[in-house]
Amino acid sequence: MDRLKIFKIGGNVVDNPEALSAFLDDFVRVSGRKILVHGGGKEATRLSKALGIETTMIEGRRVTDRETLDVVTMVYAGLINKRIVSGLQARACDAIGLTGADGDAIKAVRRPAKPIDYGYVGDITSESVNARFIDGLLKQDMVPVFCAITHDGDGTLLNCNADTIASAVAVGMSDLYDVLLTYCFELPGVMRDINDPDSVIELITAEDFDALKASGVINAGMVPKITNALRSVREGVKEVCIKNSRDILFPAGTTIK
Amino acid sequence: MDRLKIFKIGGNVVDNPEALSAFLDDFVRVSGRKILVHGGGKEATRLSKALGIETTMIEGRRVTDRETLDVVTMVYAGLINKRIVSGLQARACDAIGLTGADGDAIKAVRRPAKPIDYGYVGDITSESVNARFIDGLLKQDMVPVFCAITHDGDGTLLNCNADTIASAVAVGMSDLYDVLLTYCFELPGVMRDINDPDSVIELITAEDFDALKASGVINAGMVPKITNALRSVREGVKEVCIKNSRDILFPAGTTIK
Repeated sequence: MDRLKIFKIGGNVVDNPEALSAFLDDFVRVSGRKILVHGGGKEATRLSKALGIETTMIEGRRVTDRETLDVVTMVYAGLINKRIVSGLQARACDAIGLTGADGDAIKAVRRPAKPIDYGYVGDITSESVNARFIDGLLKQDMVPVFCAITHDGDGTLLNCNADTIASAVAVGMSDLYDVLLTYCFELPGVMRDINDPDSVIELITAEDFDALKASGVINAGMVPKITNALRSVREGVKEVCIKNSRDILFPAGTTIK
Repeated sequence: MDRLKIFKIGGNVVDNPEALSAFLDDFVRVSGRKILVHGGGKEATRLSKALGIETTMIEGRRVTDRETLDVVTMVYAGLINKRIVSGLQARACDAIGLTGADGDAIKAVRRPAKPIDYGYVGDITSESVNARFIDGLLKQDMVPVFCAITHDGDGTLLNCNADTIASAVAVGMSDLYDVLLTYCFELPGVMRDINDPDSVIELITAEDFDALKASGVINAGMVPKITNALRSVREGVKEVCIKNSRDILFPAGTTIK
């Protein structure tokens, strides 16, 4: 099978024009078929504030009422997505920006209002992903650029989590490709000691993970990320990498497989 | 050649949820290959106002400084485009929302700063249109939905006029298809008497037009629309129709060919 490389970038890249420019310079040099998934939280919070809309976060997730849905649709699907797409086009990379609604690429189910009512927030599964459509774009040598807005198929847009979109797309495409999923962030990888950049753990497997958790080597914030990465691998993704967004062109970070 | 139907809708549809819903109900019943182009001015003006950004219009065109470019990108490419796409998907129409940057569908040239500096405003030509890419989507039975944001190919987004986008796409696709371009608006067509709905002129040709202009039958606001329509026809579009947005499923309005 051909390889497909999927990268997810978040606020540390998207909120910083120089970091974004440097990332795009590297991204276009990644060989072969690829997909980019982006988050972008701070700009949405800034626009909400300017419009006098209160931002409520519960457990790191944005509560998305009607007005906030409009804000995130404007910022993620409009401003940030098109900024990235035009930046890639300027680098001779034939990018196409997408929400889950476009081409029915990714369908979501509105999250139940209990125990917490997050509003217009969607949950997705690997079955949500329209692999045939996405593959059609890849086969035309295009580079899909996804924001984390999707739809329920009944005309309602839903706000999703970009990490979740990235892993759903990765799993959804893994019948057709050997998928390598890379989460880019501000640290060099999963570290034994947060103050020691040389303490990156190169490889984590399902077998290692329990011991690493039990010994407290992996800090609490990393546990859900690695749990999700291991689930993606179980569901067909070849390997997941967690690394610094500056390191995408060379081996670095933590591989989970 | 196959037929391709291109519809352009503006503020009277886009700014009104019921009118938009009714239009989409009709649009999905239009047979064969089709493309939708949308404007959407009022919502951008409203967001600018809420953000304290002054809106300046010169000869009906929005002066687009950096902040206003962000606003129109958010509103046109984000909010309105994705609202339409999800609405079409809910009606089992496989829509894909696009700016000119996506797939390099439409390139524009930034308008010279003299005599009037419109800022980030783009001018497009029929050569701007990436017919191969758009045709690839049509051949996959998709329905492209364009907003009037495009790019210069060097990483800058540009604000264009939706009427112009519609005619450029129509001309650009006319080597591949018999293109029928329909401008939807709030009147039943080009009228001899604005107060008499029965006075719609059914057909205008290049030969008729001079006499109609000279006799003052066609009001001043209509002259540029018809001039542009006649130019599109000269450049290969099969016919252009100007009609009420409620009338797209049946013969009505003014045909220009």
